[in-house]
Amino acid sequence: MPYIDEKALLREGENIDDLQLDGLRIIQNKAIFSFGIDAVLLSSIVNVKDGGSILDIGSGNGIIALLLSSKTKASNIVGIEIQDYVCDMARRSVKMNGLEERIKMIEGDVRLLAPEYRDSFDVIVSNPPYFKHKAGLISENSRKMCARHEISLNLDELFQAASLMLRNKGRMYLIHRPSRLVDIFLHARKYKIEPKKARFVVSKMGEEPKLVLIELVKNGGSELKWEGELVIYEENGSYTEEIKKIYSISGVTSFTDKHQL
Amino acid sequence: MPYIDEKALLREGENIDDLQLDGLRIIQNKAIFSFGIDAVLLSSIVNVKDGGSILDIGSGNGIIALLLSSKTKASNIVGIEIQDYVCDMARRSVKMNGLEERIKMIEGDVRLLAPEYRDSFDVIVSNPPYFKHKAGLISENSRKMCARHEISLNLDELFQAASLMLRNKGRMYLIHRPSRLVDIFLHARKYKIEPKKARFVVSKMGEEPKLVLIELVKNGGSELKWEGELVIYEENGSYTEEIKKIYSISGVTSFTDKHQL
Repeated sequence: MPYIDEKALLREGENIDDLQLDGLRIIQNKAIFSFGIDAVLLSSIVNVKDGGSILDIGSGNGIIALLLSSKTKASNIVGIEIQDYVCDMARRSVKMNGLEERIKMIEGDVRLLAPEYRDSFDVIVSNPPYFKHKAGLISENSRKMCARHEISLNLDELFQAASLMLRNKGRMYLIHRPSRLVDIFLHARKYKIEPKKARFVVSKMGEEPKLVLIELVKNGGSELKWEGELVIYEENGSYTEEIKKIYSISGVTSFTDKHQL
Repeated sequence: MPYIDEKALLREGENIDDLQLDGLRIIQNKAIFSFGIDAVLLSSIVNVKDGGSILDIGSGNGIIALLLSSKTKASNIVGIEIQDYVCDMARRSVKMNGLEERIKMIEGDVRLLAPEYRDSFDVIVSNPPYFKHKAGLISENSRKMCARHEISLNLDELFQAASLMLRNKGRMYLIHRPSRLVDIFLHARKYKIEPKKARFVVSKMGEEPKLVLIELVKNGGSELKWEGELVIYEENGSYTEEIKKIYSISGVTSFTDKHQL
């Protein structure tokens, strides 16, 4: 890897976090965008053939693209992010890791992606905003708000875009809130992206689910297989064995409280 | 209660099971229709105001209507069942229990219910056939098949009927297979009966869900609350405390292996 002046890549308020995975590092800005457990869990379920292509819709600071560059042998990972500053952070992280050959970060609206991307991706992955516009809590700043609320991208637009960009029988992986499952299933079916596997994520055994992981297939048949819950914490507050394994495969071992579910 | 000659109410192959609840008894025919854990779990989540009305769509041998006659103070419980023999069993059970004043069993297609029932019920409850027509295993006889496969009533028809018969803001309670959730949510939304609460039922902790309990509201807002799983068995194979409580409230303490999940 050529020498990169990391300091020159950083802007005010940013810091570099070591992902402890193949030497990967990521630029974060705690006030604006830093990744959570959602991105790590989502990355852990993605399967793509060697040499395949992945599109990450709403790619934020590039965490999922970076994790997948290590976890998979995909040759072409495209992230698209509508927020200019956040996309710029991701681009600088890609550059810092010397991954420009495999990861491309595009700033803009996914629905306006160039025609050559249509019906082309083997896999689409997305950790979209969870809340409806005007519902739920409003974040303290507009950039965080855009990542959490369906301001730039709602479920209809997400599935419409996925349907446009995914090849026939291509897979989509999604993480979202269980409370939105009716909306998710409705829009998925509307655009012929069929939910095939789903799994709830609970903080502790016996509690209500906090997140849901979903695998969908473009033009797939209608039969949804639910898996047993993914439990984050043991009764004593330590991580479960399954979470430890996911973290060690993802390389993320340094979660702080802000990532807690 | 007037003296009833129970023997005279029984047909060949039938027997009387004691529900051990307020002296309730039910006529069953193991070869054709006997109730399962599904009906007991579904009955356990039904709430209706005193003096309210309940419609049970696909009421089988009347198990849910009988349980609800004890569990609630609904004054008007209507069951509708398309299979003539099964409906006749239910009628004889109602008569045997002296409940003709509160429970009415109608034989026929729910969509053809008389106009006076429209927009009238406070609560609709249904333990419908789980399998798509031609999907899954075929039961050994046509009556069992009709109770298990969407031959006489599919999800579209069920929600259409519920939408016709339920009063505004009336509640619907449903038990079904998790694998059908996409179809369920789609048809529920289509007929403006919004899923509001849902809960998975698992055989043992950590396993994949086998059943899902759903509460819906006619013209309700779109926000689905998921509750923690309902677990049937402890690791050692005994019933969990929650199931013991449900069974004792329902009065059903004599489950045999055929009811096991």
